[in-house]
Amino acid sequence: MKFSFEIQKKDGKSLARRGKFYTPHGVIETPAFMPVGTLATVKSVLPTTLHEIGTQILLSNTYHLYLRPGEEIVQKAGGLHKFMNWDKPILTDSGGFQVFSLGDLRKITEEGVYFSSHIDGSKHFFSPEKVMDIENALGADIIMAFDECSTYGSDKDYAKKALRRTINWLDRCYNHHKNENQMLFPIIQGNMYKDLRIQSAKETIPYAKMGIAIGGLSVGEPKEVMVDMLDTLAPYYPENMPRYLMGVGTPDYIIEGVLRGVDMFDCVLPTRIARNGTAMTSQGKVVVRNAKYKEDFSPLDPECDCYTCKNFSKAYLRHLVNCNEILASTLLSIHNIKFLLDLTKNLREAISNDTLQQFVTEFYAKYYKSHTLYNFG
Amino acid sequence: MKFSFEIQKKDGKSLARRGKFYTPHGVIETPAFMPVGTLATVKSVLPTTLHEIGTQILLSNTYHLYLRPGEEIVQKAGGLHKFMNWDKPILTDSGGFQVFSLGDLRKITEEGVYFSSHIDGSKHFFSPEKVMDIENALGADIIMAFDECSTYGSDKDYAKKALRRTINWLDRCYNHHKNENQMLFPIIQGNMYKDLRIQSAKETIPYAKMGIAIGGLSVGEPKEVMVDMLDTLAPYYPENMPRYLMGVGTPDYIIEGVLRGVDMFDCVLPTRIARNGTAMTSQGKVVVRNAKYKEDFSPLDPECDCYTCKNFSKAYLRHLVNCNEILASTLLSIHNIKFLLDLTKNLREAISNDTLQQFVTEFYAKYYKSHTLYNFG
Repeated sequence: MKFSFEIQKKDGKSLARRGKFYTPHGVIETPAFMPVGTLATVKSVLPTTLHEIGTQILLSNTYHLYLRPGEEIVQKAGGLHKFMNWDKPILTDSGGFQVFSLGDLRKITEEGVYFSSHIDGSKHFFSPEKVMDIENALGADIIMAFDECSTYGSDKDYAKKALRRTINWLDRCYNHHKNENQMLFPIIQGNMYKDLRIQSAKETIPYAKMGIAIGGLSVGEPKEVMVDMLDTLAPYYPENMPRYLMGVGTPDYIIEGVLRGVDMFDCVLPTRIARNGTAMTSQGKVVVRNAKYKEDFSPLDPECDCYTCKNFSKAYLRHLVNCNEILASTLLSIHNIKFLLDLTKNLREAISNDTLQQFVTEFYAKYYKSHTLYNFG
Repeated sequence: MKFSFEIQKKDGKSLARRGKFYTPHGVIETPAFMPVGTLATVKSVLPTTLHEIGTQILLSNTYHLYLRPGEEIVQKAGGLHKFMNWDKPILTDSGGFQVFSLGDLRKITEEGVYFSSHIDGSKHFFSPEKVMDIENALGADIIMAFDECSTYGSDKDYAKKALRRTINWLDRCYNHHKNENQMLFPIIQGNMYKDLRIQSAKETIPYAKMGIAIGGLSVGEPKEVMVDMLDTLAPYYPENMPRYLMGVGTPDYIIEGVLRGVDMFDCVLPTRIARNGTAMTSQGKVVVRNAKYKEDFSPLDPECDCYTCKNFSKAYLRHLVNCNEILASTLLSIHNIKFLLDLTKNLREAISNDTLQQFVTEFYAKYYKSHTLYNFG
């Protein structure tokens, strides 16, 4: 089998676990954070730099690559790995979340979704089969099932319908996808309704061969609701495969997820806020543009050993941000991605060393001046 | 003495020479191309990458750094080298060209130039003494005199006045500048009038201790006029110091300059056209956005060994350019800068190997499908 998951250590006081996920393009140590390279590029960062800071796996987007450059170009290039020069694992999402986010520009039917491109208004159609074909052409190691992600605040009737459609579509994805070099991850939905989440988990699990995802969380709901859903789902996950919480990238959400048995996370947050001039540091968030850093010649994060922190001062970074210099995006993205990679690395080590509770408590105190929502028994 | 120049080899058939220019931050092998880092950053390229591709010296801009972040911030940071994390030589221009380019936003008097910031309209004044103070605070190895660069097409009367003022200001710069760790380069002006150029050279040379610059060329005049001015000036340069042709960065202008005894060049061209999606390659210019590269999976330049050419295809670069991805600027800037660095390196080696005429002939034929303007006697 080309994919397998090995649990190396379980934390005694929480559901956290440390593992190794084997894929055709290498091993991913979990818990893992996956930087996002929407258009086959992690914005402003060279692949070689991503290697250097310890990136294990990248996420890329089916919807975006389908529109530009088109999956057939990527396939002719030899697949996404070769196209973007990334020889470690890649995960592609299904475009489900993206097409639903198009609002008036899309129409959902049982057969699939009709939508207009956000770029030029051209008409397109995604069915589960079509999405599998695209993801097969892109050639990522992990491919996501085509799902309907109902909006936070949807009523239960609609949430039920979306859930039913997601299961139907999962079945079609499962039957259409044949490439054994790519692992299909089904997605648990169910909005913020506990019974729907449980039903979704039960119906989704039979399709999960080596990996399962939790979708539709971290979409605007309060943190308490998010962790409540994770607590609800925790007893139902299959044990011996990775669990992936989609779209989560703030330190607290990653930590709360890990404590509830989640193994994988992704988010555009570190690169998006970087382009906006904001950094995540061991001392909490730093808004680099702030005038108080004008003559601050200390590094962005005194505890960080990334290229940015080793070589540049806050005053220099602020100058670049102020002048809208591209290098600001690059330097802050490098730091922010490494911050989350280091966080998951530290979580892995804390699990190994039986110091997870202490690590989490200290991290929360320092970064958020608050404490975890998890109850350590 | 902290600065010296050593001529290692002269070409027999042209005025080209190969040399070593010693500065407090290291040796510059000449002929040399200097990438431009206007705001203390070469747009979109990490300093470590600039090192890797063989950059010997960077240029930065007094006018821009005076406005943002202000020279006092740079000074407090420990100078420009430390501020931007570049430990090799740096040259700062004087802001002369920039303030004159402000048009209606500036007023020139014998005392200096009154101007409004292009950013916020705030009022400022540059005198030769003020500019020396700013350049001293920035701390570059090579600092340029404050000059008046008359526009191409100016009548002779104005060109004469600008020339006279430039000499007067040079005298004031020379008398005001005291830091022996910084070499002041005076600038020859004179517009496109041969007699004024010669007069300017004669009056400027006494102020040139270890380096002299040629300003006001490559400002829109035909190439024939540019080389005519260089031919006119050639007999007047002091022999044992570097000659710097300002603002020149196309391969042909660099080559024509080298053949006429010029040692140093700078230009924003390689990074500016990179951000615009254009590359300089051994086969000539490549407009990456062009549809014909859609499925071209070959490298940008088959003869180049830069990071971009070793790892990515034209199809991928075109995709990034089409999507306005920041990485396009970075990858094309890396390539374009290395292209000019390699060009000057190849010129140095051709001078050493007595193969300059052959190298130049072949380069012109391949890149421009034409031939050099230089007469190899």
